[in-house]
Amino acid sequence: MAAEQDPEARAAARPLLTDLYQATMALGYWRAGRARDAAEFELFFRRCPFGGAFALAAGLRDCVRFLRAFRLRDAGSPPSARRAPHARQKPPPMADVQFLASVLPPDTDPAFFEHLRALDCSEVTVRALPEGSLAFPGVPLLQVSGPLLVVQLLETPLLCLVSYASLVATNAARLRLIAGPEKRLLEMGLRRAQGPDGGLTASTYSYLGGFDSSSNVLAGQLRGVPVAGTLAHSFVTSFSGSEVPPDPMLAPAAGEGPGVDLAAKAQVWLEQVCAHLGLGVQEPHPGERAAFVAYALAFPRAFQGLLDTYSVWRSGLPNFLAVALALGELGYRAVGVRLDSGDLLQQAQEIRKVFRAAAAQFQVPWLESVLIVVSNNIDEEALARLAQEGSEVNVIGIGTSVVTCPQQPSLGGVYKLVAVGGQPRMKLTEDPEKQTLPGSKAAFRLLGSDGSPLMDMLQLAEEPVPQAGQELRVWPPGAQEPCTVRPAQVEPLLRLCLQQGQLCEPLPSLAESRALAQLSLSRLSPEHRRLRSPAQYQVVLSERLQALVNSLCAGQSP
Amino acid sequence: MAAEQDPEARAAARPLLTDLYQATMALGYWRAGRARDAAEFELFFRRCPFGGAFALAAGLRDCVRFLRAFRLRDAGSPPSARRAPHARQKPPPMADVQFLASVLPPDTDPAFFEHLRALDCSEVTVRALPEGSLAFPGVPLLQVSGPLLVVQLLETPLLCLVSYASLVATNAARLRLIAGPEKRLLEMGLRRAQGPDGGLTASTYSYLGGFDSSSNVLAGQLRGVPVAGTLAHSFVTSFSGSEVPPDPMLAPAAGEGPGVDLAAKAQVWLEQVCAHLGLGVQEPHPGERAAFVAYALAFPRAFQGLLDTYSVWRSGLPNFLAVALALGELGYRAVGVRLDSGDLLQQAQEIRKVFRAAAAQFQVPWLESVLIVVSNNIDEEALARLAQEGSEVNVIGIGTSVVTCPQQPSLGGVYKLVAVGGQPRMKLTEDPEKQTLPGSKAAFRLLGSDGSPLMDMLQLAEEPVPQAGQELRVWPPGAQEPCTVRPAQVEPLLRLCLQQGQLCEPLPSLAESRALAQLSLSRLSPEHRRLRSPAQYQVVLSERLQALVNSLCAGQSP
Repeated sequence: MAAEQDPEARAAARPLLTDLYQATMALGYWRAGRARDAAEFELFFRRCPFGGAFALAAGLRDCVRFLRAFRLRDAGSPPSARRAPHARQKPPPMADVQFLASVLPPDTDPAFFEHLRALDCSEVTVRALPEGSLAFPGVPLLQVSGPLLVVQLLETPLLCLVSYASLVATNAARLRLIAGPEKRLLEMGLRRAQGPDGGLTASTYSYLGGFDSSSNVLAGQLRGVPVAGTLAHSFVTSFSGSEVPPDPMLAPAAGEGPGVDLAAKAQVWLEQVCAHLGLGVQEPHPGERAAFVAYALAFPRAFQGLLDTYSVWRSGLPNFLAVALALGELGYRAVGVRLDSGDLLQQAQEIRKVFRAAAAQFQVPWLESVLIVVSNNIDEEALARLAQEGSEVNVIGIGTSVVTCPQQPSLGGVYKLVAVGGQPRMKLTEDPEKQTLPGSKAAFRLLGSDGSPLMDMLQLAEEPVPQAGQELRVWPPGAQEPCTVRPAQVEPLLRLCLQQGQLCEPLPSLAESRALAQLSLSRLSPEHRRLRSPAQYQVVLSERLQALVNSLCAGQSP
Repeated sequence: MAAEQDPEARAAARPLLTDLYQATMALGYWRAGRARDAAEFELFFRRCPFGGAFALAAGLRDCVRFLRAFRLRDAGSPPSARRAPHARQKPPPMADVQFLASVLPPDTDPAFFEHLRALDCSEVTVRALPEGSLAFPGVPLLQVSGPLLVVQLLETPLLCLVSYASLVATNAARLRLIAGPEKRLLEMGLRRAQGPDGGLTASTYSYLGGFDSSSNVLAGQLRGVPVAGTLAHSFVTSFSGSEVPPDPMLAPAAGEGPGVDLAAKAQVWLEQVCAHLGLGVQEPHPGERAAFVAYALAFPRAFQGLLDTYSVWRSGLPNFLAVALALGELGYRAVGVRLDSGDLLQQAQEIRKVFRAAAAQFQVPWLESVLIVVSNNIDEEALARLAQEGSEVNVIGIGTSVVTCPQQPSLGGVYKLVAVGGQPRMKLTEDPEKQTLPGSKAAFRLLGSDGSPLMDMLQLAEEPVPQAGQELRVWPPGAQEPCTVRPAQVEPLLRLCLQQGQLCEPLPSLAESRALAQLSLSRLSPEHRRLRSPAQYQVVLSERLQALVNSLCAGQSP
């Protein structure tokens, strides 16, 4: 498949994914003769989301894809002759360079557009926190250096690609911590996302953050996220019970012996099930049963029932049992039931009792362990209840509250200039919260003897690497005097990712980043990991970095 | 530009933008011989967002684009030979049909995939609320009819394309109602969106909902949204004041006469400005002034200053005035200043006073009306304060709180089967909130004599169209008996949009839809339009539709 058939590669190639002021500033730099000044920006956030004390770094793979494809298209590029089969007759959008020319002053020097035409990221170098790493306030997720004009243009795209990815990965990690390691978490929020790419990003980074799978097929196709799914109420309501399938016969699982009419077999089982449950055989909805039979004919090895279209107890459950037992007779095992309304925990407990009783009654032990899948606006609080000890719920489908991050729907990432022409730069606004940390920096994680992170330390890039076992004098934020720390281990945090536009090492797979996230979280001490009122994790400055901040605040040149 | 260079057209062509259970249900329908049963679905929401009593319908243009391009790609399709210049070496994603085969049971009948290969929307018919219309709970935004298998597959994509678009348009409309008609609203939330398409959708539909412009360049390029922008703090901090522009000269606005060194001219003005303001001439930051000069050289007719990088009063404002007055001497008029921190209203009032005093002092009347642009986490409450009577703020930039819709980050749209094989269908769950309204329906808006909407009415498609001036007996939701209404006007709500896959009329432009939204909102009565504790707008059922609901609830066939 060619690159232009790969929607991912195509989506990455949108160089005008930016704010207009990046483009106006580009012209400003160019007019000032500064387009090629060496500059360095840092992308970071100022507060951990959701009231927690940690975040997960994510979005790097999308940034790399964007940076490597970054090039402004020009109307002079040879157009392809092909058109999409149903292409609309509206005029195609202007090429990138022409569009910028249309929104910049008409008397802009044509040489500026010549500069834009030649622009790419071949002189851009990126250091980054690997995806799935723990990230803390003020520690760069990305350090981006290169010619001032181009690294300024990258501000909005990089923020756009990193902020939500990190937010949703962090949200997913919180949900995983609440659910514990055993419950399976299924992301199913595509329809609640900000359009198609919002959904793709959500599914990809929910998985990175700790979910097991997604219902989003595109995330499976393009990102390799494991996909899972079941059936919806419309499938059930589409059947009245009078439909006749073209082929009602199902062969046994072992593949030998004659097929049987599954609907007829289910009808026989229904009488036994209703007698067992004390229900009239007319009570279960015939359309629902027909739907279950149809689904079972298509998925005999993966039969699931959605129980709450009409009535869980009087219809969904007996119909499911009838079809599951009919399948069982042919050697197939039903895999699950889904509940999408009502008190999910309570129903799961009672359904498990019914399964156990029916397993004994009909001598089909596997029925005891049919998965119970629940969904319906599950948030952190509801999840905690569903994951409590003794819960019979096995799989939890979460849509809105993982994808939209309703507790805090944006991370508030920023991208700040820290050095230009080798000189440190700092924003000295009257709002201390919005001040920045100047200079090209290195970042380290200081670990205790038990391997758990104690604090992160930022220092100037040229300072010697701190050594394990050595006492360090460091400045906590806002402190009046330094404190000392003797880390048992020191981990450098930022890895060289792109050097002069070239990828330095293969990016880890999504599953590898997911494993790193779980490992990182497991090492975090409980007081930093807890989700409500956690102890704040400190990010401290080296003495030299603190001295630089002080000198710039005092208006001295460094 | 060819279609495959148009990211919009390409983004639309992602047929696997769906949940896995749509695909599993497709196989279920196919196996049951029901793939081509005539079916109708409705897309609607159950509650208006943000505690209001209205929503705006939006997203239709994206749906039309998706439906017209919808076709599953097969590995057998002729691949193009071209590759993107920096294409990664990782294997390309599987083609659509092959990917589905990889996640469905291995023994799935190959004839099912043959069916998928031929699938398109050429038998799909869509009726829709025009974009920018008022939408209310239970009234379909889309009615989608066609072969059961394909219209079921469209569930997730259509929900994904309509729900957030309508949500953000409604959010923007609320912000516009708060701001009043005079303040200019600039959307600047791309970096806070769920990735690139999230941002594009947000910018497009914020504009539709009533914003004036967006900073998102891609929304301008691809959707024709007016774009606007200014400069960021990094531009200011990148200058130390020691930089020498390659060409410091600026020609007069009239184009005649010799150019002048703008930096030198600004330096002269700075002394006068500082004397006027009672500041020392050393106080304003020289780097900030150099940045303003650089920006003014690039944008002499559109000069703006960002005032709060160092200190608004001691640096930003005097530097802005010095450069603006220097430009003024050459015949140019500065257009604006931006504030991004602190008490925005208070500062705007004081800055306007300074502008007025300086206009008088230096005899430049235009300085009085320089635009004051503000931004910094502005939500509904902050906006109400900035828009109060007497406010000197002119332009309000809003990012996070328009794009992420933090009050309610998802609309909760649903897509429900209402008829199959000509028979009405209804979900009769024990949760009354989740019941659906059966049957193929028509929808009307009943208007009072003042032209304001009284209520919406749903009836069966085959019922005669209600007439203006005629008394109607209708059932409000949950009522024990009908009530009567005599509308002065009756408007049909749903327009035929796609018939058997063919576009029935050109879609309105985005600007036309935006105008419709403002017109619709202006007609809504104040008690329905107010944003807090509004009167609920009723959606009533015709007597025949109510009778159908009753008969299905009672378990009778209709």
